[in-house]
Amino acid sequence: MLGRVLCMVLFVGAFPSPAEASQGHISVVLLGATGDLAKKYLWQGLFQLYMDQVSSGHSFTFHGAALAALEPGQRLMFDVLKKLSCPPDEAPDRCAVLKDQFLKLSQYHQLKTAENYTALSREIETLLRQEGLKEAGRIFYFSVPPFAYTEIARHINSSCRPPAGAWLRVVLEKPFGHDLQSAQQLAAELAGFFREEEMYRVDHYLGKQAVAHILPFRDQNRQFLDPIWNRHHVERVEVVLKETVDAKGRTSFYEQYGVIRDVLQNHLTEALMFLIMDLPANMSSAHEVVQHKLQAFQSLWGLERSSAVLGQYQAYDSQVQEELQEARGYVSTTPTFAGVLICSNSLRWEGVPFLLTSGKALDERVGYARVLFKNRAYCTQSGALRDAGHSQCKPKQIIFHFGHGALNTPAVLVSRNLFQPVMPKDSWKEAEARSDLHVFGQPLSDFYMYSPVKERDAYSVLISHIYHGRKDFFITTENLLASWAFWTPLLDSTSRQPPRLYPGGVENQHLLDFEMVSGGVAFTLAEPAELLNPSGQMPSDFRAIQSKFRQSPLVSAWAEDLISQLASDMEEAAVRSVARSGQFHLALSGGSSPVVLFQRLARHHYSFPWKHTHVWLVDERCVPLTDSESNFLGLHRHLLQHVRVPYFNIHPMPVHLNRRLCVEEDRGAELYAKDIVALVANASFDLVLLGMGTDGHTASLFPRAENGLEGAPTVVLTESPVKPHQRMSLSLPLINRARQVFVLVLGKGKHDITTLLSRVGHEPRKWPISGVSPSSGQLV
Amino acid sequence: MLGRVLCMVLFVGAFPSPAEASQGHISVVLLGATGDLAKKYLWQGLFQLYMDQVSSGHSFTFHGAALAALEPGQRLMFDVLKKLSCPPDEAPDRCAVLKDQFLKLSQYHQLKTAENYTALSREIETLLRQEGLKEAGRIFYFSVPPFAYTEIARHINSSCRPPAGAWLRVVLEKPFGHDLQSAQQLAAELAGFFREEEMYRVDHYLGKQAVAHILPFRDQNRQFLDPIWNRHHVERVEVVLKETVDAKGRTSFYEQYGVIRDVLQNHLTEALMFLIMDLPANMSSAHEVVQHKLQAFQSLWGLERSSAVLGQYQAYDSQVQEELQEARGYVSTTPTFAGVLICSNSLRWEGVPFLLTSGKALDERVGYARVLFKNRAYCTQSGALRDAGHSQCKPKQIIFHFGHGALNTPAVLVSRNLFQPVMPKDSWKEAEARSDLHVFGQPLSDFYMYSPVKERDAYSVLISHIYHGRKDFFITTENLLASWAFWTPLLDSTSRQPPRLYPGGVENQHLLDFEMVSGGVAFTLAEPAELLNPSGQMPSDFRAIQSKFRQSPLVSAWAEDLISQLASDMEEAAVRSVARSGQFHLALSGGSSPVVLFQRLARHHYSFPWKHTHVWLVDERCVPLTDSESNFLGLHRHLLQHVRVPYFNIHPMPVHLNRRLCVEEDRGAELYAKDIVALVANASFDLVLLGMGTDGHTASLFPRAENGLEGAPTVVLTESPVKPHQRMSLSLPLINRARQVFVLVLGKGKHDITTLLSRVGHEPRKWPISGVSPSSGQLV
Repeated sequence: MLGRVLCMVLFVGAFPSPAEASQGHISVVLLGATGDLAKKYLWQGLFQLYMDQVSSGHSFTFHGAALAALEPGQRLMFDVLKKLSCPPDEAPDRCAVLKDQFLKLSQYHQLKTAENYTALSREIETLLRQEGLKEAGRIFYFSVPPFAYTEIARHINSSCRPPAGAWLRVVLEKPFGHDLQSAQQLAAELAGFFREEEMYRVDHYLGKQAVAHILPFRDQNRQFLDPIWNRHHVERVEVVLKETVDAKGRTSFYEQYGVIRDVLQNHLTEALMFLIMDLPANMSSAHEVVQHKLQAFQSLWGLERSSAVLGQYQAYDSQVQEELQEARGYVSTTPTFAGVLICSNSLRWEGVPFLLTSGKALDERVGYARVLFKNRAYCTQSGALRDAGHSQCKPKQIIFHFGHGALNTPAVLVSRNLFQPVMPKDSWKEAEARSDLHVFGQPLSDFYMYSPVKERDAYSVLISHIYHGRKDFFITTENLLASWAFWTPLLDSTSRQPPRLYPGGVENQHLLDFEMVSGGVAFTLAEPAELLNPSGQMPSDFRAIQSKFRQSPLVSAWAEDLISQLASDMEEAAVRSVARSGQFHLALSGGSSPVVLFQRLARHHYSFPWKHTHVWLVDERCVPLTDSESNFLGLHRHLLQHVRVPYFNIHPMPVHLNRRLCVEEDRGAELYAKDIVALVANASFDLVLLGMGTDGHTASLFPRAENGLEGAPTVVLTESPVKPHQRMSLSLPLINRARQVFVLVLGKGKHDITTLLSRVGHEPRKWPISGVSPSSGQLV
Repeated sequence: MLGRVLCMVLFVGAFPSPAEASQGHISVVLLGATGDLAKKYLWQGLFQLYMDQVSSGHSFTFHGAALAALEPGQRLMFDVLKKLSCPPDEAPDRCAVLKDQFLKLSQYHQLKTAENYTALSREIETLLRQEGLKEAGRIFYFSVPPFAYTEIARHINSSCRPPAGAWLRVVLEKPFGHDLQSAQQLAAELAGFFREEEMYRVDHYLGKQAVAHILPFRDQNRQFLDPIWNRHHVERVEVVLKETVDAKGRTSFYEQYGVIRDVLQNHLTEALMFLIMDLPANMSSAHEVVQHKLQAFQSLWGLERSSAVLGQYQAYDSQVQEELQEARGYVSTTPTFAGVLICSNSLRWEGVPFLLTSGKALDERVGYARVLFKNRAYCTQSGALRDAGHSQCKPKQIIFHFGHGALNTPAVLVSRNLFQPVMPKDSWKEAEARSDLHVFGQPLSDFYMYSPVKERDAYSVLISHIYHGRKDFFITTENLLASWAFWTPLLDSTSRQPPRLYPGGVENQHLLDFEMVSGGVAFTLAEPAELLNPSGQMPSDFRAIQSKFRQSPLVSAWAEDLISQLASDMEEAAVRSVARSGQFHLALSGGSSPVVLFQRLARHHYSFPWKHTHVWLVDERCVPLTDSESNFLGLHRHLLQHVRVPYFNIHPMPVHLNRRLCVEEDRGAELYAKDIVALVANASFDLVLLGMGTDGHTASLFPRAENGLEGAPTVVLTESPVKPHQRMSLSLPLINRARQVFVLVLGKGKHDITTLLSRVGHEPRKWPISGVSPSSGQLV
């Protein structure tokens, strides 16, 4: 059989000239050659590759592989191959000849054991030797379930690598893990077998023509976009994939993943990154593109529980019960709908909401990314006339229409009152104006609209990119992990949250509309009673538990609720204090626990009276303020740079006087104490926020410290058992003068010490935290 | 005649009970009783007052006055009075009786000489004595040209004051000056005759029902508005008065005033203030209302030339030539159209554009204030369905419709997807939904719409408020001056700017549409050639003059152009420097000249790399940083609090160490020099911005200073000839190490010294500024 095929190769050699044929031979191995994806897209994509590249100077062979034995596998595979269709723009004669050749160049292999792989490799080598062909490279396309990855990867690495000088490209299909940890694990395993540049992780969205054109569009239209592609002009960015189908028949997969893992973490996130990343100077450098995309990930604010609204179509539960043989009372919290608000803190995008939305059983099937611009105009002529022309008061938007929907084609739309875009004439053509169609409330005639000269399936596009080695169309390991690192906290925090139930289809009406509310999103309509989850068995862990701890209120709760309550309490205290005295003196601790609190204050508390707030430090490490160990730097990074505290009201501890650190004779501690006395009435802070260490330390007051546990209300230099040893700290007596002291304890590691402390008395020398007892104030 | 009138008073006494009549008598004197305003509105307003208050217990007499002699004046006035109409809601019988009585209570006086005034006062006193009536008060309504104010005011003050225990209220009609200076002068003159509480300055807009209801609406709907009446929810605020008429027949007035003085400075500004001021806790306190309004003025950013677009309808020039007998070539720059962008730096409104627009010869007659809210929602259901209900994705707005336009009635409109407002049932009624009408692109059925139960003319409303002594419906002196202080800089900077010509009416099309562009506004369309001013004689002063000064480039220009160029140059230098070294070290001077520059940087230069900029001080006064004399405070107020320079990158001079000022042994200067050496490569600042005093000083280096003019590149303590004497300053040699030095000289007072310096050589001891010569850099 091989012999026959080879004859054909040589016959085909009539197409490329001998000189071109010297480019070498490429072997494509499709693993899972008889599976759904292969049937539907991959073989057709490989056939397209062959048609496109038959004259490129490369020769090809195509190797379908599966677990089935040779005979039945072969039959199954050739049933698929016979159905391959010629694209409409190909001459039927040429296509018929090429299809015939393609079939002859294709063969089936059973790949099950290590021997099978060795045999495959040997066959390829023998063939090439016989025909005197140089090997250019091998492509292995993994169209198999992820659990099979490692095994196959091991075999390829050990038995199927091409000889030196030829490349190896392995193509991987999602899912690539289901959270950060599993993705890291999978990535580490694969890294044992393949080099980064050998791996091509497919997100087929990157092959969709409208998605793939986002970056080129931005590059080719820099002249128009540069002034407006920022927070001053963009009102919002939406990336949306709506489906009408539900998960019926796929619940065994879907129940493990849900809409965020299935669509948002990969497809929508990638499209968003193309929209928001800074453009590299050199667009043709895949490396630069990937680096800029990673930077865009870094600029995103972490997701919180309130960043998303989740829904589940009503029939889902019974589908799961049926397909997975679950008990009748089984309740799934897997979301089939999600709306997520993403924010960036880059200078370019700060304050611009990015909304990612996807769901099953919705009213229409459509995918798009939409950049809506602010209306910066006032149109003096009245309404009727205003609508006649291409007024600046009409909405301005750029839409990358992925497919389906009213347009039913990939398309790029630009409002005519924005600019006429530069589009590559060979691949995009201006579409006819169909004035009967409306998109986003505007007639199509309001847009410049472009559609592809030739519609191409995403897989055939990607297979071409694999052939060309264009790695920027694939997900690198760094990219993948950055995306999982971004999404995993949301997945964790919402994993047990009951989604809103929705009836499905047009019946959903406004039930899934959501709004941006104080830094997060929430459904617009209250949940109608008849749709409430009937089981009533949702976890109820999200309730704050109020009790007493050492005679003070103890508020325990899930971290997010605790932080949210604490932030509200702080704002209340601040407002009260400013109303009373015109100022609010707040002393804050370093460490990691308050970071989330700072972020919450910065993002959710717009009415906090920062302008009248003085920020003091409870303690500081003796390092320069710009050192990454500095408490002040953390405070600056997570709070101060996001709010508007006047410069004069910020009081870092003077640990770095005369350009040296905590030298006794510079009298920094004394100076800080003097500042406090000068500015804070009675040296009584309005609020002190403390943390606690597992050894019972608080502020920088450690067990058995010589200074600061008793005596005068002052500022002291202390010694820490851990590095950096030197510290400056408010003393316990000074802390105890405060009107309010909050102690924030976060983390499992501190459970034991908390329990222990609930039993001990006032023993500050042993447990400094036990000495916290504001003389005229409140301890929480 | 008086006797007859008096009889009628007593007869009228049958309406109020004797007890009520004991409230006392009120004399209303209408100066300019036969003028246009009196004919059209004021007499009708006084008649309405009489109808409303005839049973109040007060008795009335009405005194029309003018310069005309008794006989003709009387005839003219009674011709007007006879035409007074009864309002439709008054019983015709009662109205006829009351009108008869009103005529009998009214009389004409010639008021020309001091004797006339004395006589009037004596008549009133005699009448009251004869009838045994107590005097409650006197109202003098000035419906006369402003040049007559002072004379009349003097007469009233010297001859017509009521006896002790009775009040005096003088009512003044605009114009109240034509800029800040003239308004101050007029206010000062009036203050010589009347106490503040005696003066009622009329802005008839405050009597318009929809304007007057803005504050009550905000107060009564606090529950709904509190969360959304801020920059997070409001997209923009528009206050608009469009007219179809032009200035024909009024050019003698209009040519002196123009649209800004005529409409924006008063009517539209007052309406805007009602929208944006913080609500006082006690709405019934006129004092609190006025104080909060003044605070709102304080929060506004100053207007610049780029804050406005100006237009003039094409026929205006020829109308002026005709009516004012100007020469054929006469070109007026008086604007008949203005669109102005106003911004606030309050926490509530920062970043929300307030757009004020008014013009003559436009396409429609309409007045409104409109608060447009941001769309915070994502509507998951597709467009067709979305529009069916009251979706959150539809525009949300609140409109105070002053009158005319499609609605042709005063009205309050609230989008149904916002909330159903609380409205006082006795004065506002819900209007019928007329679905055929559209306002701002939405059918009227999308709104809750309310119109007045009874439409009332603004003057009759205001006359009632004068009677009730409701001063919050009038413009206090402080209010007036605050408004002029706000508008005068714009009037000054645009006084010679040629307005865009527009054809008038619907022909204007998009010609007057304007857009917000980098902190200002600009017309959207380029000016079409055929509409360009044909005279070509516009002043061309606005061109920057580039020349050489002491071998360095000298850029002279109108201040605003100079500042704008300087700011751009600084941004360029910063970007270059950050690209080169990752940092930009900028040393800035204090004083008043740089303030405008700082504001420009903060408002127009969004891409300035502040995050990588270090800000240093060139010099500082030895005062605490929070002292109003501190250079740093100025820098903070005008620049630092508006941009995002990291805390660590801000380097105030250490003039206040150990809580004492510039004490030698605290070694502040030495410390600052050390910081510079530690952070700035080669101690060479990337850019130093200097000012210059009329004595040739620069930084805090004064003529014949002992320190800093020569020697080492360091930081020095110096003595200033003016207070505060003690200063800290970079030395000349240190300044001269900079890569670039800009010297900014603003103001007429510095012309002489500039000229002088162009001739002297390097004489730093005499003229410190002459010693500025960067060794390896550029001086501009």
